[in-house]
Amino acid sequence: MPRYALLLEYDGAPFAGWQRQSGLPSVQGAVEAALARLEPDVPSIAAAGRTDAGVHATGQVAQADMARDWDPFRLSEALNWHLKPEPVAVVGCARVADDWHARFSAVERRYTYRVICRRAPLVHDRGQAWLVKGDLDVDAMQAGAAQLVGRHDFTTFRAAMCQAASPVKTLDEVTVEEVARANGREIRFHLRARSFLHSQVRSIVGTLERVGAGAWAPGDVGAALRAADRAACGPVAPPDGLCLTGVGYPEPVFG
Amino acid sequence: MPRYALLLEYDGAPFAGWQRQSGLPSVQGAVEAALARLEPDVPSIAAAGRTDAGVHATGQVAQADMARDWDPFRLSEALNWHLKPEPVAVVGCARVADDWHARFSAVERRYTYRVICRRAPLVHDRGQAWLVKGDLDVDAMQAGAAQLVGRHDFTTFRAAMCQAASPVKTLDEVTVEEVARANGREIRFHLRARSFLHSQVRSIVGTLERVGAGAWAPGDVGAALRAADRAACGPVAPPDGLCLTGVGYPEPVFG
Repeated sequence: MPRYALLLEYDGAPFAGWQRQSGLPSVQGAVEAALARLEPDVPSIAAAGRTDAGVHATGQVAQADMARDWDPFRLSEALNWHLKPEPVAVVGCARVADDWHARFSAVERRYTYRVICRRAPLVHDRGQAWLVKGDLDVDAMQAGAAQLVGRHDFTTFRAAMCQAASPVKTLDEVTVEEVARANGREIRFHLRARSFLHSQVRSIVGTLERVGAGAWAPGDVGAALRAADRAACGPVAPPDGLCLTGVGYPEPVFG
Repeated sequence: MPRYALLLEYDGAPFAGWQRQSGLPSVQGAVEAALARLEPDVPSIAAAGRTDAGVHATGQVAQADMARDWDPFRLSEALNWHLKPEPVAVVGCARVADDWHARFSAVERRYTYRVICRRAPLVHDRGQAWLVKGDLDVDAMQAGAAQLVGRHDFTTFRAAMCQAASPVKTLDEVTVEEVARANGREIRFHLRARSFLHSQVRSIVGTLERVGAGAWAPGDVGAALRAADRAACGPVAPPDGLCLTGVGYPEPVFG
């Protein structure tokens, strides 16, 4: 069966997450339903990041095994046709080797978390950013973030339901960037690692927000990390602002 | 009656336009309904730009005459509370002189039109940009746009229903900018003038798109302008991509 890598963009708001769950809308379910319109008996698909309910993607990668030998462009066009009107789009498609795996071959995941600071409710970015009504100190958040980079036991920043075998992960990047926008300040957190624990990004962003608001000192972030205790974590940031922006593989997949 | 200037952001998608129309949802109607929750008998409000159905704003300016002397911050907070869940937000509020007028005192309007070039349907920007499936030549569009800058008879780029007394307007700026984005190319058109004719921006962008696609030569834009004939206009671009981003007054209003 020829294997295809799919580069996916989706709005997480209407979904209970990536993973198929009986009776609930899921991104995986939407893509599998579109695949089923093309061929009977397409096997269940796998993705690099199992995003939670409400979490977005511009760079999710999934794999699908087809019976027919599809031209990748035709396959993406056909899937986009059948995905309508779901807010899910195939933005890249490539034939890959049979032993390539969207999840297990991935060597890097990149997430971006958007925060908008202003008093007024969000309009065009509703559901796509975390609205914080106070102002945030970017430098203080960057100082707090720097303490998390490297190989650490991230028990503090891991959801209770996390199924990873070990809480030890290597965080390669946490940067805090201010982006120009009309009507408010936009702050973006960029995180990069080989893999993440469940809720790790949202736990880190929620904690750094406390630093930005002045409720925590930057040094408190390192202390929370060293505590290796879930109770030491700040509030978990809402899913709205989180987006899986890219997945890295040893060889580029989509050219 | 103290007069207030309101800086408004809205998503045009659910509205039949700025202007109140009986039986149809309008932005004016939404703001007036919120004002009516604060005081009885608030007079009808006026705005700098009467945006069409589906057209967005991040910098619309309206005026409201209140009976009470409101603190501007309190007024904006109260309006945002009562505007929920409409996709309309008050992002600025200022007390202005009695002879200041949101529409007649305005000396500049700024619009931005967003185009996204890619094959896949839009996801996060659905309804907020024009999806063009082919590629566009930015330099050719800029060359075409340059022919429209200055004082001209814009009959070609004016909707039949336009009520302006004269088709002569001075276009101060038309720039074409490419903006980085994931999964496709984003092109933004920035237009600036004291005032615009009905559908002028969408008529210009739709015509420039033909130039970008190679169907028109850049010089055809000047020829269409000189024809002073609505039939010489290219297709009118859809409202989704259009946003009123700002209004200028002789003195800054919102500090």
